Amino acid sequence: MKKTYDAAIIGAGTAGLTAREEISKYTDNYVVIDGGTLGTTCARVGCMPSKALIAVANAYHSQQGLEALNREDTKPALPDSAKVMAHVRRLRDGFVSGVTKDMESWRGRLIQKHARFIDPNTLDLGDETLHADKIIIATGSKPVIPESWQKYAKYLIDTDQLFELETLPRKMAVFGLGPVGVEMAQALSRMGVDVICITRSKSIGGLTDPDVQNYAVQTLSKELRIRIGPLQIVGETGNRLTVGFENETWNVDRVLVAVGRRPALNGLGLENLGVELNDRGLPVFDETTFQIGNLPVFIAGDANGLRPLLHEAADEGRIAGYNAMAPAVTGFQKRIYLGITFCEPNIAVVGKSHKALNRDEIEFVVGESDYEHQGRAMMMGQNQGKVRLYARKTDSLLLGAELIAPHGEHLAHLLAWAIGSGMQAADILSMPFYHPVLEEGLRSALRQAVKNSALPKPQFEMRTIPDSITG
Amino acid sequence: MKKTYDAAIIGAGTAGLTAREEISKYTDNYVVIDGGTLGTTCARVGCMPSKALIAVANAYHSQQGLEALNREDTKPALPDSAKVMAHVRRLRDGFVSGVTKDMESWRGRLIQKHARFIDPNTLDLGDETLHADKIIIATGSKPVIPESWQKYAKYLIDTDQLFELETLPRKMAVFGLGPVGVEMAQALSRMGVDVICITRSKSIGGLTDPDVQNYAVQTLSKELRIRIGPLQIVGETGNRLTVGFENETWNVDRVLVAVGRRPALNGLGLENLGVELNDRGLPVFDETTFQIGNLPVFIAGDANGLRPLLHEAADEGRIAGYNAMAPAVTGFQKRIYLGITFCEPNIAVVGKSHKALNRDEIEFVVGESDYEHQGRAMMMGQNQGKVRLYARKTDSLLLGAELIAPHGEHLAHLLAWAIGSGMQAADILSMPFYHPVLEEGLRSALRQAVKNSALPKPQFEMRTIPDSITG
Repeated sequence: MKKTYDAAIIGAGTAGLTAREEISKYTDNYVVIDGGTLGTTCARVGCMPSKALIAVANAYHSQQGLEALNREDTKPALPDSAKVMAHVRRLRDGFVSGVTKDMESWRGRLIQKHARFIDPNTLDLGDETLHADKIIIATGSKPVIPESWQKYAKYLIDTDQLFELETLPRKMAVFGLGPVGVEMAQALSRMGVDVICITRSKSIGGLTDPDVQNYAVQTLSKELRIRIGPLQIVGETGNRLTVGFENETWNVDRVLVAVGRRPALNGLGLENLGVELNDRGLPVFDETTFQIGNLPVFIAGDANGLRPLLHEAADEGRIAGYNAMAPAVTGFQKRIYLGITFCEPNIAVVGKSHKALNRDEIEFVVGESDYEHQGRAMMMGQNQGKVRLYARKTDSLLLGAELIAPHGEHLAHLLAWAIGSGMQAADILSMPFYHPVLEEGLRSALRQAVKNSALPKPQFEMRTIPDSITG
Repeated sequence: MKKTYDAAIIGAGTAGLTAREEISKYTDNYVVIDGGTLGTTCARVGCMPSKALIAVANAYHSQQGLEALNREDTKPALPDSAKVMAHVRRLRDGFVSGVTKDMESWRGRLIQKHARFIDPNTLDLGDETLHADKIIIATGSKPVIPESWQKYAKYLIDTDQLFELETLPRKMAVFGLGPVGVEMAQALSRMGVDVICITRSKSIGGLTDPDVQNYAVQTLSKELRIRIGPLQIVGETGNRLTVGFENETWNVDRVLVAVGRRPALNGLGLENLGVELNDRGLPVFDETTFQIGNLPVFIAGDANGLRPLLHEAADEGRIAGYNAMAPAVTGFQKRIYLGITFCEPNIAVVGKSHKALNRDEIEFVVGESDYEHQGRAMMMGQNQGKVRLYARKTDSLLLGAELIAPHGEHLAHLLAWAIGSGMQAADILSMPFYHPVLEEGLRSALRQAVKNSALPKPQFEMRTIPDSITG
């Protein structure tokens, strides 16, 4: 017997859940299909447990920095990694159960099976077939582990497994310094793990500006061994894996593989949609409506490989859900781009990246500042960082920024919102900057951007009152 | 012999130094007169040393919070306060010497004497008399210690003396929980000092919203003994001072008096300006030009009692300097108000305060959220806080905010800039909010503000693309 629904959503992750929320405003005749572990990538193995581990690691680290001010006869105790990992899982479990609790009101519409397209309106669930007027693919992504490394699988862990470790290994390699790699490499190292990082390029945490990349490599190298270039797995040595880079080798207990994530589309039967698939196995879809061609099928969240970030996945799920129910699809603007890596100092890419500006041949000027002599950063003992702002040459309109800076996650939001509200660097200078704050570091960069733009040098940063008073 | 200058600036603090910088663009024939210690209130006894002490205290505090995750047989060592205070002074001295070094290029124009007005163009410096076409009063402020307490002077310290302590006392009282009082009370307590705080009202850190005030008192009371109401000094008991509140008394080694600062105008001879002085001894001045009446005299920075904050003092000095040199004076807009208290969680008042909105009879709605169940705050173990946003009822235009929140200093900048760029709460919702970040707490409050406003409920937070696409 074939059941018929208004909509089916494949995947109960962030994108799928927001799609469901949107669809439920229009119909009760929908299903959500998920054959995997419930609870979202973010809560189970992503944002949440990683931030919990980072918080503990950073607190230990700041404790070490204070040691010199303390009595000389005391050393900060090494963290008990079993307790820390239990703490991380306890917090994580709280979040996961929050997610699954939120699912209870519609639990009857959840089918815990794997789905495979028979045609754009029909899904094979193994023991049943299901028809839906609209279908949303929101199957998320999986960490990539190259096929050739599979023989060393017992040494390799990805973020699906990392937070399950009972205790931390003594020696680890981290492959890849994208956001996940660099966050975990630093946290593990700060927790006392002996870490070697090998990464293909200097685009640490997604940075594209060579100046900021170099500064980031230099700064992070003060506490992390980082090698940039092709890595290799040499083989097993006793109970350890030997990894190599150029003439160096290291024997490690485990390797955290963080070389990327790819859309989880295996077994979905996308070949039965009747549209062309690209070399990543992805169908062409509209990046503003998330519709696949002219099909009644949408693809949202990590599954489409566009912007694998939680807040983007939530937006995309909502848009796909809305468009699935609407008589005609609507295109939506993306929010200003914001990518943050929660290492210390934080790394962020905001708005148009340096690479994108050059690719698009936009005429821009740069305003730069560093945090090495920045007052507040010095008071906090965190005076490392570099910010580069990109502004349109003609009028200093803020376009983008790349940075590695203390509390950079907050500076990045400030810049993203300023870009989103269409502010020129010159306008922003009339905003308040308290003292002493890290935001004052941005002011130096903004001033330089204005100076480098084609704008006449402003007399004042404060705005005048329209009517001048004769004195 | 009477010397004649284009301009004289009385006071080499923040306001005086920015006034000088501005004036030096137009003339070399000026003097700066300062009979006190050089180096600015901020660098010597204000923002800078306080932030250094806070940074150390907070690091110790987070260490204590982690103890439960660590081995049970270790206790975090108590801070060595002599080392900490030496560290604070070392950082402070670096900043002060930065300030005085910046003065070297014009050191020949600095007169280290006390000035007293003879008339609006003439100053008596004791052994000489000086004429200036324009005079800027930038004499700063001094901590208030009530006259009746002077007999207990040996127990009383203000922030001019606090950072000079070689070691920290065992028991202290803090009188007043304005920004300085609450910052120092918490830092001292976190450094192991047994602190009792007595403050006149709930307006801790300048908060005016009763809901946020109550939350702040409750939250800070978890680690600080706070009494609200009239305090009294009972008298000396042995080598200690007995302070009292209602039926309680405490014997303390020292009292930090932080009941306010007042303009330092004593001995300036303002009575010789020929204008009326108010009951605080202040002449009437224009708050947009900083001119006193129609006199060739300006008053800027803490000296005018308007907004005793460094960034405002810098603006006012610059405006006063500009107007002193200009053929006609110009009024300037103030930046959006921003007041931050660097206790944990941070306290901030942004834009129009709750009190100001009510006073001005503006029709506003409130959006509120707390940080107790906020994801990132929980991961950081800092899940305490409350934010209340005020938006214009008709269109959700953001007007102001009061908050106590983790990393609130950054949230406050974000809100201040959003207010300054004229954003509605509804607009702000289309800005990026990364995940998991503390800014997501603001989003909940913004959503509530939009809901409570007269705006129709928005279909989407993301902006649509103008041309709808037919699917």
